[in-house]
Amino acid sequence: MTPNTKTQLCGLLGYPVEHSLSPAIHNAAFHHLGVNAVYLAFPVEDLEGAMRGVRALGNVRGFSVTIPHKVAVIPYLDDIESTARHIGSVNTIVKEEGRLIGYNTDASGALAALQQAGIALEGRRIVLVGTGGAARAIAFGLAMRAGIARLALVGIDADERARLAHHLRERTAVEVDEYSLTEAALARAFDAADVLVHCTPVGMSPKNTESCIPKHLLSSKLVVMDIVYNPLDTQLIRDAMDVGCRTIKGLEMFLHQAVEQFELWTGQPAPVDVMRAVLEAHFQ
Amino acid sequence: MTPNTKTQLCGLLGYPVEHSLSPAIHNAAFHHLGVNAVYLAFPVEDLEGAMRGVRALGNVRGFSVTIPHKVAVIPYLDDIESTARHIGSVNTIVKEEGRLIGYNTDASGALAALQQAGIALEGRRIVLVGTGGAARAIAFGLAMRAGIARLALVGIDADERARLAHHLRERTAVEVDEYSLTEAALARAFDAADVLVHCTPVGMSPKNTESCIPKHLLSSKLVVMDIVYNPLDTQLIRDAMDVGCRTIKGLEMFLHQAVEQFELWTGQPAPVDVMRAVLEAHFQ
Repeated sequence: MTPNTKTQLCGLLGYPVEHSLSPAIHNAAFHHLGVNAVYLAFPVEDLEGAMRGVRALGNVRGFSVTIPHKVAVIPYLDDIESTARHIGSVNTIVKEEGRLIGYNTDASGALAALQQAGIALEGRRIVLVGTGGAARAIAFGLAMRAGIARLALVGIDADERARLAHHLRERTAVEVDEYSLTEAALARAFDAADVLVHCTPVGMSPKNTESCIPKHLLSSKLVVMDIVYNPLDTQLIRDAMDVGCRTIKGLEMFLHQAVEQFELWTGQPAPVDVMRAVLEAHFQ
Repeated sequence: MTPNTKTQLCGLLGYPVEHSLSPAIHNAAFHHLGVNAVYLAFPVEDLEGAMRGVRALGNVRGFSVTIPHKVAVIPYLDDIESTARHIGSVNTIVKEEGRLIGYNTDASGALAALQQAGIALEGRRIVLVGTGGAARAIAFGLAMRAGIARLALVGIDADERARLAHHLRERTAVEVDEYSLTEAALARAFDAADVLVHCTPVGMSPKNTESCIPKHLLSSKLVVMDIVYNPLDTQLIRDAMDVGCRTIKGLEMFLHQAVEQFELWTGQPAPVDVMRAVLEAHFQ
């Protein structure tokens, strides 16, 4: 539909933004459902100025927030959803009657990707490899909203890992174990684990054949989710399929964080298959 | 074209904005030429905040500015084109490498409407009826950029008229006469005049049969331009056609101020006929 005086603006605040897939999937979804909205990408260095504009411009419905603004944006918001507040980062802003509310759909999107794949999470033991921003969002999502029993954090940055473990123990009821990223530690962490979520950048294109999980440690009882979505089938996903694991690709996580954004902005069910098709077409 | 990460944003800053025709004509023109840009309408009360956003958001190409912000926007710009500076109001912002430049295409659009109709202006005598914001823009456009010989200002607000006359005499080389809006004064002003430009709101829908120019004062040697564009044929335009005058309708003025905006933002010739067709379709 041609934009008119009622068209709502959604968009992405980040720097840089030119490789984002968000305009493609959100505009396809708006078009499919006839939602009178447009999604644009805004490279932003002056975050304070951009947020003054987000607040002052009418017909703004919401924004995605990405690197480097996910933490820095918080002081400019009026309210933060509780999981996002504990994570300490926001990837989604919704404007409600002039108030700016922050959410973190990296957390809810990861849960949705697991749930859509039919993975029951309540009472389960999860291994998270990686302790950066994405791992932190997923850890709090699992700990606060999925009823998991135990979370093993595996990572190379001891300070970051200890801080995340401390915050999880302080703010949630989950049992947390910590391991450095060694083969022996992974073997121990995988013992009795139900789900592995890989949250480091290892395996991302162009280093398509790398994985930080030795294949021989995987067993078919493990559900394996990778948040790397380029390539669609990472080395870890291919190894896990070889071994007979159920797998959830990074595309599902990326898709569902966008699905959750779309639903927050529009209040209606997202056309998930349309959005998935846009992503798949991009990588094929 | 579906918006992507390179799509440029143009838009309207005003309050209210919901009756604006600018999104319809600019989006039709972008679409026709395959320009990767979108034009949206932004109701804005906090102009300072909006301008912080216009500056901070990348992929912003430019904005239209309308009531009540045309004068107030000036302190937030980095540079003002000279005619706009003398007028003291801006209806167009262009972002050039991060700098915000103000223009007034009400002035240049009125000249373009006259020129496109084949009206030679150099050395001519013009009568302007009305002394408000639109009259002021057109007066400076005529005085600074069209080489007219003499300008008669006719209006009911003596202070506003005197101020405009003073500024024109101070800042331009044009000879200025002043008249209050009476039948006798109009008759005198029309004596030896070549072009009448009507710049008051009189005749605007729903008061379609009103005119502040008595028909019997019109003669066929006068070119008559009305800036009221709704209805397309105002009472003044119908009277002028009856008498045998050449006429220029308000739609042409509205069209050409948008054409000039489009060309400032895109650097390419606007599809004038496409834009005119959108306006005509709206009023028919």
